[in-house]
Amino acid sequence: MGPGDPVLAIDIGGTKIAAGVVEPGGRLASWGQTETPRGLEAEQLWRTLDALCTNLLAEQRIDARDGLAGVGCGCGGPLDWPAGLVSPLNIPAWRSFPLRERLQKRFAGVTVRLHNDAICMAVGEHWRGAGRGRRNMLGMVVSTGVGGGLVMDGRLMNGATGNAGHIGHVVVDPSGPFCVCGGRGCLEAIARGPALAAWAQGEGWRPGQALVTAKDLADDAAQGHPVGVAAMRRAGRALGIAIASAVHLSDVEVVSIGGGLAQAGPLLFDPLEEALRTHAGLGYARDVPVVAATLGKSAGLVGAAALIFAADRYWAGD
Amino acid sequence: MGPGDPVLAIDIGGTKIAAGVVEPGGRLASWGQTETPRGLEAEQLWRTLDALCTNLLAEQRIDARDGLAGVGCGCGGPLDWPAGLVSPLNIPAWRSFPLRERLQKRFAGVTVRLHNDAICMAVGEHWRGAGRGRRNMLGMVVSTGVGGGLVMDGRLMNGATGNAGHIGHVVVDPSGPFCVCGGRGCLEAIARGPALAAWAQGEGWRPGQALVTAKDLADDAAQGHPVGVAAMRRAGRALGIAIASAVHLSDVEVVSIGGGLAQAGPLLFDPLEEALRTHAGLGYARDVPVVAATLGKSAGLVGAAALIFAADRYWAGD
Repeated sequence: MGPGDPVLAIDIGGTKIAAGVVEPGGRLASWGQTETPRGLEAEQLWRTLDALCTNLLAEQRIDARDGLAGVGCGCGGPLDWPAGLVSPLNIPAWRSFPLRERLQKRFAGVTVRLHNDAICMAVGEHWRGAGRGRRNMLGMVVSTGVGGGLVMDGRLMNGATGNAGHIGHVVVDPSGPFCVCGGRGCLEAIARGPALAAWAQGEGWRPGQALVTAKDLADDAAQGHPVGVAAMRRAGRALGIAIASAVHLSDVEVVSIGGGLAQAGPLLFDPLEEALRTHAGLGYARDVPVVAATLGKSAGLVGAAALIFAADRYWAGD
Repeated sequence: MGPGDPVLAIDIGGTKIAAGVVEPGGRLASWGQTETPRGLEAEQLWRTLDALCTNLLAEQRIDARDGLAGVGCGCGGPLDWPAGLVSPLNIPAWRSFPLRERLQKRFAGVTVRLHNDAICMAVGEHWRGAGRGRRNMLGMVVSTGVGGGLVMDGRLMNGATGNAGHIGHVVVDPSGPFCVCGGRGCLEAIARGPALAAWAQGEGWRPGQALVTAKDLADDAAQGHPVGVAAMRRAGRALGIAIASAVHLSDVEVVSIGGGLAQAGPLLFDPLEEALRTHAGLGYARDVPVVAATLGKSAGLVGAAALIFAADRYWAGD
C-alpha cells in the first residue's frame, strides 16, 4: 500500500449493490453494480458482493493485499455501529450479518470501515459535494426510506449508537400516518417513496396497478398529472417542516438532499421551500440553502471512501 | 492565578441576574443575585452587573487580577457567538451590547467566555448534572422561552452561529400557533410560560387577572384545577413531540429539562412521556430517559464556569 492507493468503496442498498474505486482526491475512477438479488440466503448474497468486488479489482489490476488504502462500505440500516452487524430493512437475507467482520476477513491486513448508507451519502456530499468547505451540513436521502447524516463543527456526528442525523423520524404531523418505526407522523411515513405511491393510489392514481414506484409518480407529476403534483407537494411540505426543525436544532449552513425523489426538481423543491420559509423563523435558520446532492448517485461511494481518506473528520469508531 | 483558583460565573436572564464563585470541581461555593432591573439604560444595567460581581468577589476576598481562573458568563439570547454581542429578548436595554468585551475590560488579563444561557445550563447539566459521564445529551430550559444545548460525541456542539441545540423552534404542530420567531407551530409558541398562561386564560383560568405566570398555573394544576392540568398536558405533549424529533435526529442518551416548568413533576412529565412513547419509535430513541435538571437553578452558573474549567469539551470559540 502506498500514498496514492485508492479505496475500494461499497454501497449496499435494497435495490442496488455498487462497488467503486475511489482515488485519494475523491474521484470515482471506476465502478460496477448489480441489482440486489432477492430470495437468496445470507451466504449467497455475500458471494454476490464478493464477486462484484473481486471483478472490479481484477479489471482495475488492483492487488487487494498491497494496492488498497482501505475498504469503505455503506449499508442500509439498521446496523450496529461501529461493529458492523447489519440488518438492512430491505434485505431480509441479512439479519445481524457481520458484514464488517466478513469484509475484514476478505481483505486481511487492510483497514475496513462501515457506516449507514445515508451517512455515507452525507459524508460524500460534505467531503466533495454541496457541503465542501462548510463546517456544518445536514445530508439527507429520500428514497425507499428517508435517512441522513449530520456534520457539525467540522466532524461527522455519530451520537450514542451511530444514528445521529436520522431525520426520517423527525415528527412532521403528530396526527399523521403511523410509521414502520412504531412512531407516528414521522417524515419517513409521509415522504418515503412507497408511502407516497400508496397515498397517490388512494387518490386515484393508476388504480389497480400493483407495481408502481415513486419514480413513476414523479414522472407523471412532471407531465402534469394532478395527483402526481399533489403527491410531490405532500412530500415537499413534509420535507420542509422536518428541515425547519432540524436546522433550528442543529444550526447547519446547508442541507443536501440525495436519493431518487431529489431529482423531481421544482415540483418537490418549491413546496419544500414554501414550508421551510413558513416554519424556519429565526435568522440563522431562515436562509439556509437546501439543494439537490451535487454528487448524485456516486455520493454514497465517495462518502464510503472518505471514511478511510478523511478519517479525522468522518470516522470516530474503532 | 493558581491551579485551585475559582471561576467567577455569571448568569443573565430576563428575571434575575446571578453571579457565583465556582470551584474547579464544579461546586458553587457562593453566589448572589438581583432582580433584572427594568427601564434602565444599557450602562446602568452594566453597572448593576458590575456591582454584583464586585461585591461577591469582595465578600469572598478574591483578587480579580490574581485570584480567578477565568470569568464565564451565560446570557439570554439572541447573541453573537463567540463575539459576545448580546440582545436578550427580555432585556430591551441591551441591543448588540458588547458584553464579552466589557467583561474583558473589567477583568483585564483574565480569560472571559460567554455563551447563551440555555447552553450554559445544558453544559452545567452535562458537566456535573444529569449528563455526567455520558457522551451525548440534550439539555433544555423551559421558562419564559424554550432553549437548549446539545452535547454530541463528548463535546458541546455550536453549529454555524452558536445556536445548535435550540429546540424551542422545533415544529410540534404545523397548523399550530404562530411563534415570535416568525415561524409556526414551534415548541416555544406552545410551551413557553407566557404562552401557556395566555392559553389557560383563554380557557377560563382566572379570568380578569392581568398578571399571571406559568408558576401560578403550575401551582393551580397541582391543586387539581382542570384548566391548569390541561395546560400542563398541553405543554407536556408538545415537549414530548419535540423531544422525539430531537432524539431521533441527535441520538442522545439522556435529556435534561431545567427552568421553572420542569418543577411541575408528573403533571408535566406524564403527558410528556406519553407523547414521547407515541412518537419515538426507533430502538435507540425509545428508551432515552427525560429527567428534571439535577443541578436545579445552579446549572447555569456551573455551566458558565465549565466554559473555563472544561474548555476542551465546552468551548470552541476564540
